[in-house]
Parts: sequence; structure tokens; C-alpha cells
Amino acid sequence: MTRLYDKHQPLLERAREACRERHCWSPFPEMPAKYPDAERAQSEGLRAFRGYLGSAGHRRRFELDQPGTINWIGEEVSPYTQQALGIDYPQADIDTLFAAATRAMDTWAAASIEQRLGVLMEVLDTLYREHLFEIAQAVMHTAGQSYNMAYAGSGVNALDRGIEALVYAEQAMRAVTPAARWERRFGPTEVRLDKTYRLVPRGVAVCFACASFPTWNAWHSMMASLATGNPVIVKPHPATVLPMAITVRVFRQVLAQAGFDPNLVTLAVDSVAAPLGKVLVKHPKAAIIDFTGSVQFGQWVEQNAWPAIAYTETAGCNTVVLESADDLDAALRSLATTLCMFSAQMCTSPQNIYVPREGVRTPRGRVPFEEVGRRLAAAVSQLTGDPKKASMILATLQSPRTLALLADLRAQGQARGQVLLEPAPYPHPEFPQARTSTPLMLQVTTAERDLYGAERFGPVSFVIACEDAADALAQATRDVKEFGGLTAFLYSTDEAFIARAEQAYARAGAQLTTNLTGAMPLNFAAAYSDYHVTGLNPAGNASLTHLGFVTGRFAVSQSRRPVRDPA
Amino acid sequence: MTRLYDKHQPLLERAREACRERHCWSPFPEMPAKYPDAERAQSEGLRAFRGYLGSAGHRRRFELDQPGTINWIGEEVSPYTQQALGIDYPQADIDTLFAAATRAMDTWAAASIEQRLGVLMEVLDTLYREHLFEIAQAVMHTAGQSYNMAYAGSGVNALDRGIEALVYAEQAMRAVTPAARWERRFGPTEVRLDKTYRLVPRGVAVCFACASFPTWNAWHSMMASLATGNPVIVKPHPATVLPMAITVRVFRQVLAQAGFDPNLVTLAVDSVAAPLGKVLVKHPKAAIIDFTGSVQFGQWVEQNAWPAIAYTETAGCNTVVLESADDLDAALRSLATTLCMFSAQMCTSPQNIYVPREGVRTPRGRVPFEEVGRRLAAAVSQLTGDPKKASMILATLQSPRTLALLADLRAQGQARGQVLLEPAPYPHPEFPQARTSTPLMLQVTTAERDLYGAERFGPVSFVIACEDAADALAQATRDVKEFGGLTAFLYSTDEAFIARAEQAYARAGAQLTTNLTGAMPLNFAAAYSDYHVTGLNPAGNASLTHLGFVTGRFAVSQSRRPVRDPA
Repeated sequence: MTRLYDKHQPLLERAREACRERHCWSPFPEMPAKYPDAERAQSEGLRAFRGYLGSAGHRRRFELDQPGTINWIGEEVSPYTQQALGIDYPQADIDTLFAAATRAMDTWAAASIEQRLGVLMEVLDTLYREHLFEIAQAVMHTAGQSYNMAYAGSGVNALDRGIEALVYAEQAMRAVTPAARWERRFGPTEVRLDKTYRLVPRGVAVCFACASFPTWNAWHSMMASLATGNPVIVKPHPATVLPMAITVRVFRQVLAQAGFDPNLVTLAVDSVAAPLGKVLVKHPKAAIIDFTGSVQFGQWVEQNAWPAIAYTETAGCNTVVLESADDLDAALRSLATTLCMFSAQMCTSPQNIYVPREGVRTPRGRVPFEEVGRRLAAAVSQLTGDPKKASMILATLQSPRTLALLADLRAQGQARGQVLLEPAPYPHPEFPQARTSTPLMLQVTTAERDLYGAERFGPVSFVIACEDAADALAQATRDVKEFGGLTAFLYSTDEAFIARAEQAYARAGAQLTTNLTGAMPLNFAAAYSDYHVTGLNPAGNASLTHLGFVTGRFAVSQSRRPVRDPA
Repeated sequence: MTRLYDKHQPLLERAREACRERHCWSPFPEMPAKYPDAERAQSEGLRAFRGYLGSAGHRRRFELDQPGTINWIGEEVSPYTQQALGIDYPQADIDTLFAAATRAMDTWAAASIEQRLGVLMEVLDTLYREHLFEIAQAVMHTAGQSYNMAYAGSGVNALDRGIEALVYAEQAMRAVTPAARWERRFGPTEVRLDKTYRLVPRGVAVCFACASFPTWNAWHSMMASLATGNPVIVKPHPATVLPMAITVRVFRQVLAQAGFDPNLVTLAVDSVAAPLGKVLVKHPKAAIIDFTGSVQFGQWVEQNAWPAIAYTETAGCNTVVLESADDLDAALRSLATTLCMFSAQMCTSPQNIYVPREGVRTPRGRVPFEEVGRRLAAAVSQLTGDPKKASMILATLQSPRTLALLADLRAQGQARGQVLLEPAPYPHPEFPQARTSTPLMLQVTTAERDLYGAERFGPVSFVIACEDAADALAQATRDVKEFGGLTAFLYSTDEAFIARAEQAYARAGAQLTTNLTGAMPLNFAAAYSDYHVTGLNPAGNASLTHLGFVTGRFAVSQSRRPVRDPA
């Protein structure tokens, strides 16, 4: 019964150690080329992906043997081809999914921790061995990520976050002893009780997956819920269903092979015109909600999920403070790279760049504010001028609405500030129809706070003039507290200022990266090491991976009775 | 700086072990007579208590050196004398308390885990060494508990729950490594980062203390919040202020002696006429709410606390299933004792007793339903007939409203069922004016569910006729799920039935005690061993003590920067 656990135990042990020490570790190769028998795997992944595709005229069904199908729907459009994927998914009757999940729960909850962890590690292993490149293609043609990011960020890094969640789920469950003998005198009598402590899953979990980064934001939630005994209904964004549909099918197959009810994991597809999100959150059988998406809906979930508990990860105004630098160009190059990465459609992408009006201190004197903006814009241009380079870093725009946002902000920015970078489509070398844009960068003052005082999802950044360094830090951390913030970036050679910034950002709840230049993307977050979201600001309440991400997913019910002495 | 931690470390280590293994342990003597130099301590405690008292005409002020006093109020009446205690407490401006708490937080949060734990263990030790009997008197004359219960349940057992909370707070905090070095190649470059993980308190906590069991329901919450760096504003029930006012003063003294801002702990007193509860919960600076009290307000807190997080412990319909027994009289004696204990004004007191219509199986055949009720009523009468014995077990009624409830339910019970026990005042041997009542017991059918389908706070129980044993279990667990339930009690000699009951109660989320007879009170809950509240039903969401009780009280903020090689 613990065959799968035994199989994956050595890897789990390495993961436990990494979580304890938070050093660098992953069992997976980070580059697609280093994947075992990479060429064959890549071509098979591509073939599998193409096998799913229909067309606008000839739609193809994604078969999923789950109950309650009432309709077949699908509206995905590839950001690379701007053509419909032509895939229809089973749309399920929601009550049927909840009922099936509830029926599946008891046997799963009665399984041992080892059984559940073994099966879930097998799921991750199966995703890795058999579906990684197919999922990478699916992510590319729904979320619009580059191939390398789809492989790493949406593939192996997402698997790592899944394993990490299992480690913490196990830690929280193992903190509860399964049984105890309790002996005490009451007056002249010795009372001896045998106590049993059962881990009881909270109930059916609903896992929302977002449009731009579905797997990285969902797999760990699914793992956390399932490890602690709860079934999961997956609600993908209608623009990005395929990666999660493949995911659900793999979960179901591995669960069934291990002898469990596959209805522990099901798919609830909806459409933009008829969204099901609120129905799922308010369903009387919903017990856990994992949400990734907009701040607005995330806050609604937090306020309205009760009596279900909610874990949210939304977005925010990620900030940069440029106070001083030994090598300003290196800092600006790193910032430019991060501003371009996946066209800043990551919840960790920076947006608001605060610079003292008097300029940035460097060993060769102050670089004036206006020059800092110009040089940063130039650094971005350097990355986006060549279509091949641009395609690898910018990839595509997930949603056509982002183009409208860029046009609107550009007009407002020109009227109220200065346009440092004009956004423009770039020709993708492989996909001539790709939806693309180079970044928009605006220079403004703090009087334009209404422009930058919210997440502007897409390749948009603001270079903002501040009174001085202290004002820059105050403005930046105020953004985090008011609008939410996951990451923050600081360049300073002043240790006292760094210490103040670390303290201020810690209280505001943004994860701070200081003085990083060079090869590593500034906003890279490593599983087992980097915490993602603090829960201290509107960017979400779910911290990956803190014990608090798992402890609410199960309860402890005890029973006790007098010791029965052996006859 | 860790002097206090070093002092208390041996005891903390024993507590950690007890929490791990959940065996029986406490550093404190359970009986007042076993307290060191008991006689002197008891008389000093009584003198200290009397020193607080004023009278209706000559009110006395309880001095507390906290800021923002705008008025002096107090409306406590002793359930033993039915006279006003005559104590006025400083009523504080709420904004001033929140502002003072916020100012106090940073230094406290910057202290090490060892410093905070040391100071908090010193608080508990000071309460034990210097204030235990004074608090016992204060609990008697506000909550109305017996002397022995005030000493044990509201004294040493409450201290134990406080230590237990510290153990789990420490465990959750130590699960986060304070620092890590992270090294990885990106292409040709080796990236080396030093990462720092800060534990950031969520913010100001508001701790509600209830009227009938203030310390046992508040000290662990205060400990959990403070250990993780948060200040606490204590909001006592206006009928039971003194135990918490003494508590707050001790916290403040020990904090100040240790060099911390005493405004980490303050008192927010209100009145029945002008309650402050909702104002405190919705205060923009409130970050954590700990609530004990009614189901109704508890549910309001859970729904409305956001963006603060809420930990609630309310009440419910605690149930009994009488299926079969080897020694029915022993079972009924144990039930009778628990029905009488503190006049069933405990959140763990049973209320709804389900008995198969065909009777209870015993080795000498089935005892008919009606006879079971009669014999249970007789067992209660035996405990309450003698005033001295009655005073020790029933104590007093905390609130005059309980008398009205008894009269109302008695009338309804007579009209719709059968009165098995008539409630009546009993003469307290020491306090002739004491507010007392023997229990009301009603025999009804499941048609009277509206009568027993809610917590009836006070000495009220219902013997309910069911179809059969399976129906009894179904009815009982349905009560738990719908109305909440903390404890449950089962008598059965059928192992298969016991297994079904354990499973059903585990899912419903009530802590089950099976076949217990003899000296131990059925609803006794031992710190370090018994979990209290599961979070699976409306009886509350805070489980004592599960890691989930502490993990939400702090966040992890990280900062990372390139390794600076030594010059």
C-alpha cells in the first residue's frame, strides 16, 4: 500500500531538507535541452499537443471521463497564431461534480499519509515524464509564454512548487500524533484513556487557475488540498483551459491506477460570457477556495468565501527603488530584462520605479533623474530591437485587452507625463500572426498616482520622480500596502538605507531583492527557497509555502475511551 | 537577553514533549490544597480580591496605567452575593489603544523568539506564583464558578493552555529558517544570494474574553498572538472584567520589567448598554480577532472580520448517544455529574441525550427509554439534593437571564414533552444570596427539535427518543453539523457501532468520549493532550492547539541580495 511512497521517498527526503534549509535544489533539469532524450520528448510533446487541436470549423473534443457533462464548450485562441484552438471541453453540472467529489473523499481521507503522498508524487512524476512538453505547448498557445518559460516556469518550477506543498502538508500532518495513552489520577482512581487523533479533510476544494500562469499557480494548491485529504474541482480561466485539462486527466489516471476514485479531481469549465466563479465559491459544499487572478475578484473571494476558507494570490504594484548603484548600467540592464520578461505579465513583474528627483548616486556622481529614465528605456530597447531576442523574452500578450490598455495608458501618459518608450508590435520570427508589443514606459511624478496606483497588467512601467530616497521608499512601500505587492527591487550602496528598506518592505509584505545584477532574472522565485506572497497586503493571503498554506485544510477530530486491557 | 528563556527552558522542553506525545503532564498542582504554602496563598489571594472591591455606593477604581482613559465604568455583580462588586475600570479611547499597540509592536517583533517566549513564560509563572488565588476569587465572583473550578479550570488548566500555545507558536516560527545561502548557475555565471527570512507579526490582535470562562478561553489566544509578535487588546465581557483586568496588569508589569512597552497588552472595557465588540472587530488597525462567546456573534465575527483574520470558539449542541452499556448506572452517574458541573455553563457540557425508543441494551436486558430518563434524572437529583454537594458541583448561574430561560423551557417542555427534573434554587451553604438552580431535564421526541436545536446555555438537558441506535447517531451528528458541537459522549458495547460513531463524529467535528465512567468528569479537556474545537462545524474555527491556531498570526517576509565576500 505504500509502494509509491517508498518509490518517491528518497526524493521527498531531499525536498524536506531543501525546505528546512531553503538552499538551492531541484530534481529537474531547468533547460529543455537537458531533459532526458530531449529531442524525442519535445517532438512527441508537440505531436500530442497538435492531436488536441481542432479548428474554428472542425472542433475537437477533449475527452475526460468525468461525470455530469451537460455541454461541450471551448473558446481558447492561441496568442501566437490568433487562431482558435478548436478544442471543446466537457462542461459539467456543478452539483454533480461536488456530489462526486464528496463521494470520493472518504476513502481518500481514510488512506494513510504515505499512501496519499505516494500517489501525489506519482502524479508529479507522471506529469514530468510523460506530459511536460505537451503542457509546455499548451501553455504557449493559451497563456502565450515563450517556449523556454513554458518549459521551466510552467513546467519544472511548477512541479517543484507542488513537491514543496507536499513537504509542508506532510509536516503539518505529522505534527499531530495519531494516538496517545493518557494516564492520570483523579482522587484515589487512576484513569487511563486511549486517545485517537484523526486528520479530517475540510471538504471539497475549488482551485481557480489563471490565464497567464496556470500550472505554477495551481499545482501546489491541488497538492496541498489533496495531500490533506480533500478532493479538488479545477476551474481554469476560459482562455487557458488546455494545460489544466491535461493536468486533471493525469491526476485522474494516476488516482484510478492507484485504486482511488478519479472524481477526487475534476474540471469545471466555464466561459467569459457565463462565468461560474461565484457559483463555485458560494456552493454549499465548497470548503476550500484557492484563487489566483485579479485583485478585485481575489478580494471578493476573501470576503465572501465563508464558511469556506480562502487562499488567494492576486497581483499588485511591484515596486523598484533606485537610490544608488556601483554599476548603474548593470542595474538598469537587470531591471530592463525583468520589465520585458513575458511582457511583464507575471505577478512578480515590477511596475512602479521610484527615482529621487535629484538623481541616482554612483561612484562617478549623481546621474540625473531624466537620464536614468532615458538609460533604462534604452536598455529595454536593446532587448527588444531584435525580433528573435524579443520573441524569447517578450513572448506574446495573453489577452487582446492588453493592447487596449497600452493604447489608453500611452495617451494618458503623453498628456500628463512623458512617454519614455513607445509600445509597438514586433514581428515574431516563427509566428507572424503573434499578438505582440514592446513595452510602454512612462515618466511621471507622484501627482499621477491614479495612473500607476493599481496593477496595469502587461508591459507597462512608470519611472516616478520622488523628493528624495526616503520619499521613494515611502511611496513604494505605501503602494505595496494599499494596492498589494509581491516583489520589490532595490538598488543602493548605503547599508543604512538598505536596512531601512528591508524593514519597511518586510512590514509592507513584499519580498525584496537588493542589488542583484547579472544573469539571474530579478523576479525569479525558486521553490524550496523563495517565499511567494506574504499575506500582509492585498496581493493575496496565501504564502508559498508557509505552514499556514496547509494547516487550514484539515482538522483534528479526536476520540478517547478507557484503555481496554488485553483479555 | 535570553535570561528568562533560559530560566523557563526546562519546563518548555517538557511541554514540547507533552505536545508531541499528547500524554498527561502539567507543571501545576491540580488541587488548591497542593499549592505551595497553600493556606497563606489562599488567604492572601482573598485579601487581594477584597482589596479591589467597592460597593454600589462607594465605587473603587481598578488602576491600570494604560493610555487613553476617557471614563471609568463597571457593572459586575457577584453571582454569589448578587451585590455589585463596585469596581470601576478605565474605559479607553479605542483609537488610542490601537495607536499605542501599533507603536509597541516593532520593538517586540524585533526581539528574538527566545526573548518573547521567555517574557511570556515569565508572565504565566507570575500569574501562577503571585495571582492565582486572587484570580480564582475574581472568577468566582464574576463567572460564578465554584472555588475548586476557579482554581483548576480557570487557573492552572488555563496556564497549561497558555504554555501549549507557546509551544505551537514556537514550532511554527522555528519551521522557518532565519537565513539561507542560495547558489545556482545561470548559464556560465554562478549566482550566490544571501537570503533573510523575517517573521512579521500580522498586527494588533483583539481578544474577546467570555463571561463564564474568561481566562481558559483567553490566555492561550493572548500567548499565541504575543509569541508571534502581535500586541493584544483584551475585550472582556462586561459581566466578567476583573479576572482579565488582573491578567492585563500582570502582562503589563512583566513586559515593562523586561524592557518592553507595556502597551503591548491593554484593556478595552465596555458595557452591556454600549457594546464595543463590532467597533473593535471593524477597526482599520485590527488584524487578528480571537473570539469566545455566542454562536451568533461568533459567526458574525467570522463573516465580518476581514481583512482581519478570526479565531472563534463558541458553543453548540453537545450530544450524547446511549446505545448500550455494561454498567448503565455508572454511565448515568457520569452523565449526571457532567450535566451538573458548573450548572452546564461550559462549552463542553452535554445537552441533547439521544436514546433509542426501544431502550438501552444492558447485560440484563433492555432498559426501557422511559426508565433511562427516570434513572438519569434520579442520578442528577442525588448530586443536587444536598446543598453542600450541590454548591461544589453546580456553583451558581452566571447570568440572571439563565433563570428566565429555565422558566421558559420548563413551560414549553411541560406542554410538549415531559419534565423529568424540575429546576429549583438550592440554598448555597456559604452565600445565602447566591443565584442558583438545580438542572431542568426534559423528555421529548425528535418532533421537538426546535426546542433543543440550539445551545440552551445553562443547566438544561433533553432526553430524546429516537427510532433506534442508528437514528440516535444520525440525529446527534446532524445537530453537531448544523448547530455546532465541541464534545460528544457515547455509551456502547458494540464495537462496530463505536467504529461508526467515531467516524461520524470525526466528520462532524465533535471530540468524542466513549464509555467513560468513574472519577474523571466526562467533559474534562486536558491541555497538551485533548484537542478543543475542530473547526469543522459552527462551534468555532479555532482548534486548541493545532498549528493552524498560530500559523496565521505571522507572515514571512524575505530579503535577498548577492553574497558580499569578506573584504
